[in-house]
Amino acid sequence: MTQASMDAPQSSVAELAKRASAASRQLAKLSNERRSEILTKAANAIEQNAERILDSNIRDCRAAEATVAAGQMSPSVFARLKLSTRGVEEMAARVRDVARLPDPLGRCLAATELDQNLVLYRETCPLGVIGIVFEARPDVVPQVAALALKSGNAVLLKGGSEAIHTNEALVEIWRDCLESFPSVPPESVALLQTRVDVMELLKLERDVDLIIPRGSRELVEFVAQNSRIPVLGHGEGICHVYVDRAAHVEKAIKITLDSKTQYPAACNAVETLLVHQEIAAEFLPRAALELTRAAVELRACPKTLALLKRQEVVQAEEADWGMEYSDLILSIKIVPNLDDAIAHIRRYGSRHTETIVTEDAEAAKKFMEEIDAAGVFHNASTRFADGFRYGLGAELGISTGKFHARGPVGLEGLTTYKYKLFGNGQTVAEYSSGARHFTHRILPQ
Amino acid sequence: MTQASMDAPQSSVAELAKRASAASRQLAKLSNERRSEILTKAANAIEQNAERILDSNIRDCRAAEATVAAGQMSPSVFARLKLSTRGVEEMAARVRDVARLPDPLGRCLAATELDQNLVLYRETCPLGVIGIVFEARPDVVPQVAALALKSGNAVLLKGGSEAIHTNEALVEIWRDCLESFPSVPPESVALLQTRVDVMELLKLERDVDLIIPRGSRELVEFVAQNSRIPVLGHGEGICHVYVDRAAHVEKAIKITLDSKTQYPAACNAVETLLVHQEIAAEFLPRAALELTRAAVELRACPKTLALLKRQEVVQAEEADWGMEYSDLILSIKIVPNLDDAIAHIRRYGSRHTETIVTEDAEAAKKFMEEIDAAGVFHNASTRFADGFRYGLGAELGISTGKFHARGPVGLEGLTTYKYKLFGNGQTVAEYSSGARHFTHRILPQ
Repeated sequence: MTQASMDAPQSSVAELAKRASAASRQLAKLSNERRSEILTKAANAIEQNAERILDSNIRDCRAAEATVAAGQMSPSVFARLKLSTRGVEEMAARVRDVARLPDPLGRCLAATELDQNLVLYRETCPLGVIGIVFEARPDVVPQVAALALKSGNAVLLKGGSEAIHTNEALVEIWRDCLESFPSVPPESVALLQTRVDVMELLKLERDVDLIIPRGSRELVEFVAQNSRIPVLGHGEGICHVYVDRAAHVEKAIKITLDSKTQYPAACNAVETLLVHQEIAAEFLPRAALELTRAAVELRACPKTLALLKRQEVVQAEEADWGMEYSDLILSIKIVPNLDDAIAHIRRYGSRHTETIVTEDAEAAKKFMEEIDAAGVFHNASTRFADGFRYGLGAELGISTGKFHARGPVGLEGLTTYKYKLFGNGQTVAEYSSGARHFTHRILPQ
Repeated sequence: MTQASMDAPQSSVAELAKRASAASRQLAKLSNERRSEILTKAANAIEQNAERILDSNIRDCRAAEATVAAGQMSPSVFARLKLSTRGVEEMAARVRDVARLPDPLGRCLAATELDQNLVLYRETCPLGVIGIVFEARPDVVPQVAALALKSGNAVLLKGGSEAIHTNEALVEIWRDCLESFPSVPPESVALLQTRVDVMELLKLERDVDLIIPRGSRELVEFVAQNSRIPVLGHGEGICHVYVDRAAHVEKAIKITLDSKTQYPAACNAVETLLVHQEIAAEFLPRAALELTRAAVELRACPKTLALLKRQEVVQAEEADWGMEYSDLILSIKIVPNLDDAIAHIRRYGSRHTETIVTEDAEAAKKFMEEIDAAGVFHNASTRFADGFRYGLGAELGISTGKFHARGPVGLEGLTTYKYKLFGNGQTVAEYSSGARHFTHRILPQ
């Protein structure tokens, strides 16, 4: 490689990825104790450098204020950019949480004696290099760095340009901390700078093992369409609450309200309420009243409109059934039966999280078997679909794909496995010829 | 949709996929007993229709003979196309093998009590619709249909055009068999006809959950590049045997010979032999002699050439280190130490299967930790990397990707999981407010 090409900006990401890949091989060798020690030290470093982080954040916020004033940044994006002292403490606390999680590596998933002195193990190991592309929210940096290192992976981060100084400060603190451990290359964590960098990252199939886009649906779509590296992310969260004819009405109201209003911007918030026709007259007027009190805009099917004629409800259009409002808006549809509810969800749902409210165990069983989604809930709010609530200890994101990891993804999503076979000189010819026979005895793990 | 567009051929695959998707929802509801019963009946039907299958195969073979004569089909492809009575019996036997496998569905992967009366289960379930694109070998049809149905999935098959009559006969026999079960839609198994059909299949993201290409590297590449549906397949098998300085020479010779000659066309055959310089003089002349006797062409590094100067060895070129010969050809390189062997494998290996031959447990441990491949073997032939030999009962293929399934993929590769949450009206607001607390108690499975 010539000096000119080394200096060229388009080669820098490839170079960072190559170094991260080399670093990941060192990380894979560290014990869990050492990985946790690094995280604890990083958490301390974040606290000790709180002022530096906040100063950088003030620079970003000042620049962003002008953008907000010009109407080019929404106040909610600005709010997520802005860090407080409390926010920095929270960052450190989350890193310590990850340090305390059980070791995700070297777990034996299966062990089989193929024959005497020929034993096969399936064991978890790191993926290698993780690329994360995210928007705003600088707290993603320590969170993702912690998850990646805990699972023996190197990480390349690209945050939003509006948080560039905060992200740089955070990554520098991590790298300084890594440098104090002799066997841990600081190249394990690196920050990419520009959108051009992202385009290059997406092409580095050989050195980057996984891309995680965290942000808008457009970002996730863009990444998926422009990379052949596996992508872990969710497109949409079009979740449903189905109130069955055998529903307990109080529970149904509670669950609907929580699913819609507890945090409407979340992907696990409900977008469409489906109601069995036999319970609609009893349930819907009360539910609508509570929802309207909670400032939820209702968009309903004609039957619902007829039932709620005195209340403030607008007619739903076809497009409403496939819409992720991410806001205090709820579409409502009365269905003739459970099968029609299932059919509606199949047609419009995004395979994220679906809830049935019913006291009929058979109906619940049918719903939970037949709905194809990452989460199928009985008598619980859709908002429970979350890594912390599931007890995973940390969450990388929620996957609506069916591959590798589905639903809330924790540390396990950053690992794969390898088969280790321990032999004594065995050849396949001995077994094909019939001279030896496989025992295939499952061993206790 | 107008009548004209419904009749257009480009809609037919979409229609087949939609029906397969509907069928898959019925399949998902069947008990393991019923799924196994269907497979047993299909195996019987294959035997009862042996003559019909063989007649169709004769038609395909007659057409193929002309192609072979014209030099447009290799004799090995022709050999794989041709079926014997014994071959049909084998097909039925393999279907019965799959019928006997343990149920891959409804397995509880994890159970957590989130709180009193709020319990989360992670449970295996079918993927939905599997698309298989394969070349020649009509025995793929019953094998894949059996694996798909056993795991509750529908399947769309596209075989090579040279086997069209055989494949049609086989799919008809399966569908006739399925029709005799009232709750099992015959649309669960369908055959695509043309290359245009394949292009359409690759675009059906909503209805097709997984594509498995079985055939040449070109086929796998083509599928991966033309579809956003997840693909399970392996590109290349560039496997290495590394003979460490502490190797037992007899074992090293046995393992090298078996890895290369037991079935050289297989993806798990060795392509490059790496030899520690301290054992080269003792090991290589004897190994080379045995390999040459077994008609293996040797392509070696200069140091090896110097050592084997009286034997028939040609000099390896740079391209040899990255080549999957799939033939009786082996490249040989002397390396200064274990680290260089690992570095060579990292650079040229395809992450399939790598073997170290050594009596030094530390060297073995280092190799098995640091090599990033689906299989890392100690003192065993690379040819063991196979679903049957691993005891998976059946093999769909070998994955060199790190996602979802790695290495030999059995029934489990056709399943995903869903989270089932059973509650009693709980809301997230109760937990955020601190009124209730998660217990996150791991339950015995």
